[in-house]
Amino acid sequence: MAVTILDVAHHAGVAKSTVSRVLSGRGNTSKKTRQRVFQAIEELGFRPNVLAQTLATHASGMIGLLLPSGSGMSKCMASLVSDIHKMDVLVGQSIIMKQVRDEPGGALNAIYDLIDQRCEAVLYYNPSSFSNYNETIEQLNRCIDSFSVPVILLNSYLPAHPDRCVWYDQESFAAQPVDYLLQHGHKHIAYISSSLGQRTAQQRLQGYQRAVKDAGIPFDPLLFVEGQRCLVDDNGNEDQSLSGYLACQQLIERGLDFTAVCCFNDHLAIGAQKALQDAGLSVPDDVSVFGFDNEPILNYFNPRISSVILPSEAFITHAIKLTLAHLNGSELPNYDELDLSVKLVVRESVKSLV
Amino acid sequence: MAVTILDVAHHAGVAKSTVSRVLSGRGNTSKKTRQRVFQAIEELGFRPNVLAQTLATHASGMIGLLLPSGSGMSKCMASLVSDIHKMDVLVGQSIIMKQVRDEPGGALNAIYDLIDQRCEAVLYYNPSSFSNYNETIEQLNRCIDSFSVPVILLNSYLPAHPDRCVWYDQESFAAQPVDYLLQHGHKHIAYISSSLGQRTAQQRLQGYQRAVKDAGIPFDPLLFVEGQRCLVDDNGNEDQSLSGYLACQQLIERGLDFTAVCCFNDHLAIGAQKALQDAGLSVPDDVSVFGFDNEPILNYFNPRISSVILPSEAFITHAIKLTLAHLNGSELPNYDELDLSVKLVVRESVKSLV
Repeated sequence: MAVTILDVAHHAGVAKSTVSRVLSGRGNTSKKTRQRVFQAIEELGFRPNVLAQTLATHASGMIGLLLPSGSGMSKCMASLVSDIHKMDVLVGQSIIMKQVRDEPGGALNAIYDLIDQRCEAVLYYNPSSFSNYNETIEQLNRCIDSFSVPVILLNSYLPAHPDRCVWYDQESFAAQPVDYLLQHGHKHIAYISSSLGQRTAQQRLQGYQRAVKDAGIPFDPLLFVEGQRCLVDDNGNEDQSLSGYLACQQLIERGLDFTAVCCFNDHLAIGAQKALQDAGLSVPDDVSVFGFDNEPILNYFNPRISSVILPSEAFITHAIKLTLAHLNGSELPNYDELDLSVKLVVRESVKSLV
Repeated sequence: MAVTILDVAHHAGVAKSTVSRVLSGRGNTSKKTRQRVFQAIEELGFRPNVLAQTLATHASGMIGLLLPSGSGMSKCMASLVSDIHKMDVLVGQSIIMKQVRDEPGGALNAIYDLIDQRCEAVLYYNPSSFSNYNETIEQLNRCIDSFSVPVILLNSYLPAHPDRCVWYDQESFAAQPVDYLLQHGHKHIAYISSSLGQRTAQQRLQGYQRAVKDAGIPFDPLLFVEGQRCLVDDNGNEDQSLSGYLACQQLIERGLDFTAVCCFNDHLAIGAQKALQDAGLSVPDDVSVFGFDNEPILNYFNPRISSVILPSEAFITHAIKLTLAHLNGSELPNYDELDLSVKLVVRESVKSLV
């Protein structure tokens, strides 16, 4: 016979409800009682019916969040974690964070680990910055239905399983600040990208190229710089802006005329603006600057830096709805009805030439 | 008789090793096989011996990280999560993040939840920003030994259990930029604090007051402003710098002479510098500015903002060592031998008056 919670109670000389309290960790129990209960559990080899409970109720109270390897904790992930905590439906849930190892099969192993750890669902953030991207997407595309819990990809796209994904049209997003500058008389627009190992960086670069091309301007590779990855300052802190600073220095050294620079994100733009100013150029009189993500800190620079607001709240809300629908077997929310449009915030760093 | 893994294997018509693979989530198994195994598990009511295993080996692979309620995800927490992931000994571990509810008993309940979720250890970050601080500290002081896993407090202090804590001497840290300014001829030094609901804010304010007093200058309450908590920008993003901006505007409006302003953190300093500049004052010719934390972004402002480097790496390393020592029952690392001293980084925002 399997050992029951009643056996444990008898063995420990306490009430059954006391054992429940100790196991759930809720309510008050004295240290002595807890020790007695745990000793009884060990001596009898009692095994709480944890897996069966999870399978039956999906109520382990844990959501798995899978992050790209070696990524540090970007502002975007921080706000993701923060937003997940803010969701009413997830109040009281714990988030298990796990980094994917950057090796073949790393993503699948990490998903299995999170399932093993009783997550009710797994949100995989930004597989697109994973260096085994193509292989990973192919694997996920093949086996995403076979996991015992819903696995949802954020900022990525599985061709065979769009109902498992929430994604941005990064290309068209990135085209918009470029279009704005073109409409305001800029013709020589430079672009600073983050490392092109990231899928998102590739897509935003395509957006820049498309916008320029659509305006009848041939793409000039000399107006493009790929920023270095993972630069750290003297104290070992990751310093994304340094990448933008150095990239913009390169642009300036090439000696070409450009009247504006668009950047993959705000941190690159912050570095770029400083490089322009340190080189004696005026922002925006000589060069206009556009960031991407609209971090609040942009307002504290001189001049205030322009940027692009991503619809991250709608994005994350949709991801949570999708997860819950998969969990409950209810109707999936409609991606096509989702308003995922960006908004430009034009501040002092941008000047009209017309 | 308890249902064994062998029973599941027979029932599902697969090898025992296949059941193990499915349960651990490692290795390859087909979707069909997994479905059969899970069906057998459900039909037989098989309960993997998860708790006993955890009790025996401490090897659930999960570390709990408890965060203050409603905190959003500050840079400091982000770097904590990031640093924990970087620790060699914790490679492959998952981190379960949970926010403490801001209610009496919230901290204890959250700790019990994490234990219930099989964490091997719980790191509680910044209980000092918890509004039920005194009650929580008293409760933890009383019962921290009774938890079934090590619970370690970061940035807080339990009088009866210093071996459960890693803490900073925030008061003496905060005195140092003030001392530097005093030594360089500043006599009217303002101070912008974050919300004094936070213990750390109280301690740093004390450090400022002590330094000023030690220099024979009476504390002038008109040179002190408490920044507002949790301001958001137009797009709903938390904007700490806005708090510094508004606080510094208040200082300026009071019409007093001050030649320097020290701030609780870098974000307040960024806002303060901008407020000074927007009011037509020059940094550092009219007013010197000091932040705290030394975020890399300070280098991209004009002028570059001075700050204080916290020894966070040594701090977190010690916390991990302490956790492992408690887990393994080995000798505890010696807090007194730990070098937790700060370093000033004096940049363009500070001017000597002598």
